[in-house]
Amino acid sequence: MKIAVDAMGGDLGLRITIPGAVQAAKENDLDVVFVGAKEQISPEVARWGGKPSDFPIIDAPESVGMGDGMFALRRKKRSSIRIGIQLVRDGQADAFVSMGNTAAVVAMARQILGPLPGVNKPALSLLIPTLKGHTLLLDVGANANCQTEDLAQFAVMGKVFMEQVMGRPNPSVALMSIGEEEGKGNELTRQTFDRLSVSGLNFIGNIEGKDLYAGKADVIVSDGFTGNVALKVSEGVIETLFHMARREITKNLFAKIGLLLMKGHLKRIYKRVDYSEYGGAQLLGLNGMCIVGHGRSNSNAVKNAVRLAREFVVKRVQDRIREELARTVAPGEVKA
Amino acid sequence: MKIAVDAMGGDLGLRITIPGAVQAAKENDLDVVFVGAKEQISPEVARWGGKPSDFPIIDAPESVGMGDGMFALRRKKRSSIRIGIQLVRDGQADAFVSMGNTAAVVAMARQILGPLPGVNKPALSLLIPTLKGHTLLLDVGANANCQTEDLAQFAVMGKVFMEQVMGRPNPSVALMSIGEEEGKGNELTRQTFDRLSVSGLNFIGNIEGKDLYAGKADVIVSDGFTGNVALKVSEGVIETLFHMARREITKNLFAKIGLLLMKGHLKRIYKRVDYSEYGGAQLLGLNGMCIVGHGRSNSNAVKNAVRLAREFVVKRVQDRIREELARTVAPGEVKA
Repeated sequence: MKIAVDAMGGDLGLRITIPGAVQAAKENDLDVVFVGAKEQISPEVARWGGKPSDFPIIDAPESVGMGDGMFALRRKKRSSIRIGIQLVRDGQADAFVSMGNTAAVVAMARQILGPLPGVNKPALSLLIPTLKGHTLLLDVGANANCQTEDLAQFAVMGKVFMEQVMGRPNPSVALMSIGEEEGKGNELTRQTFDRLSVSGLNFIGNIEGKDLYAGKADVIVSDGFTGNVALKVSEGVIETLFHMARREITKNLFAKIGLLLMKGHLKRIYKRVDYSEYGGAQLLGLNGMCIVGHGRSNSNAVKNAVRLAREFVVKRVQDRIREELARTVAPGEVKA
Repeated sequence: MKIAVDAMGGDLGLRITIPGAVQAAKENDLDVVFVGAKEQISPEVARWGGKPSDFPIIDAPESVGMGDGMFALRRKKRSSIRIGIQLVRDGQADAFVSMGNTAAVVAMARQILGPLPGVNKPALSLLIPTLKGHTLLLDVGANANCQTEDLAQFAVMGKVFMEQVMGRPNPSVALMSIGEEEGKGNELTRQTFDRLSVSGLNFIGNIEGKDLYAGKADVIVSDGFTGNVALKVSEGVIETLFHMARREITKNLFAKIGLLLMKGHLKRIYKRVDYSEYGGAQLLGLNGMCIVGHGRSNSNAVKNAVRLAREFVVKRVQDRIREELARTVAPGEVKA
């Protein structure tokens, strides 16, 4: 098992990618190949306790910035993102992990790997923390425009992930909408509701935004525009709340002492809701495995992402998605 | 100036609507007409210090529950919501305020009042608290399916509200999308971006979900599906966070003391972000003024909603919207 890791990714780059990936290789049965600026990576591997001979490096001297647009991306033929994904395409790596520019990874992966047979649109999925564990939300931004059948495929892919990787038996699937009753929502969700009702999946109906973090479903399906807004709004609310808390509380001595006493606990809560701590988002439905983490990731997130990539391969998620999609026949269609 | 108030609305009904509206009438130059179950309202008015002769009551014995569907709504010909809106239509009240079932108020208002001339779709708008004051978000749920021209009209209506009622000169307008650059988003937002760019409004471009509470724009325009999801997700995040905080903190004595010391401050923060404290959402673009508050509203929110309704009428928001819409000509159209 070989996982290619984008050494240059993330706001902190090598300082988090190398220790995270080295640790993942130590703790799990897997090999890591680093992709990035070779002369920068070598000393870091040794510094973080990795045996250089155990960690091959594929030189990719160009790096894609967090703010780089698609034009820059196309121009950079030797970026760590492009070369990492090519390794997967060419069978030289089983999966690719990057904490870099999400839009760049999604675009490159789509172009270089292409979708799995039977998949209309690969989706970006994210495990979000809830009061009861984790829910998989997809799509969180790979596809701004979706059709009913795309969402039905997202549901199948999400179900397979939760079943295989997270070990949830018969995962429940909900549809993100603006009212719980059937018939609530926009044209897309209304049609998708009907479609999912006859899909054979464990479809539990619509879910409202307020229940996103309530843990009511194993999988929540959404078009990529709405999913991305939901995620970014969550991020914004948390940041605003912590900002207000700091401003409000430093006005008063007792509150300051209170904050001091509570600090460790607040931090723990923040960690639970801050998705940069998690392993990253999974691109589902591609002809090759890619995981892309938050730019703010720390080394622990990198370690988790590499471990997640391994689970993905071990559990043969790709094969299962293909099988399940082949089995799920659109209503009216005749099974071959 | 006469404001009709739905006495039966809100989770707490008469206990919040009567004191809130009585107080609003005392503090402002306006008359309140209560709509609801007459025999229940009379004693409450006196109890909260209102002179019964100052507060006429229009009997509306049927009430619409928070969970009532459209079928129940149509059947209830004498509900406080229906009769209150009819008062506005018939010129017997200048505006209607309800803390009742939002979907019911929106549906009834649309049916009974109809849109203002030139308005495709009336929108539900909400003032949301930000780090720098307030931003008006619309549509937050009246229209699940929207076209470019609808969003352009929302922008005009929102601009008029912020200018007239909130006193913001030349309000800035942003478009809710999933990337700040032009060209990011789904088909609807891409087209709307182009449309707003030539609208003559102070259009500042796309805004991402994470900046919803950052106070970057005076008005944020969105289709009603996305706007509603954004709002409900915010609600969910805050509830989840406070839930986690309580659970986390009661595990440890020091943290408990800390929480005790911070309690007042946390409550104040919660109030700032909890939109049930605010005056309620405004239906913009209807041929008559309606404000609908959160079901969890307290008497203070009712008071604010009534005062807001008064501002609306005093500032002639309806006329201004008509004027601005007539002035804003779609590209390619020739001004009459």
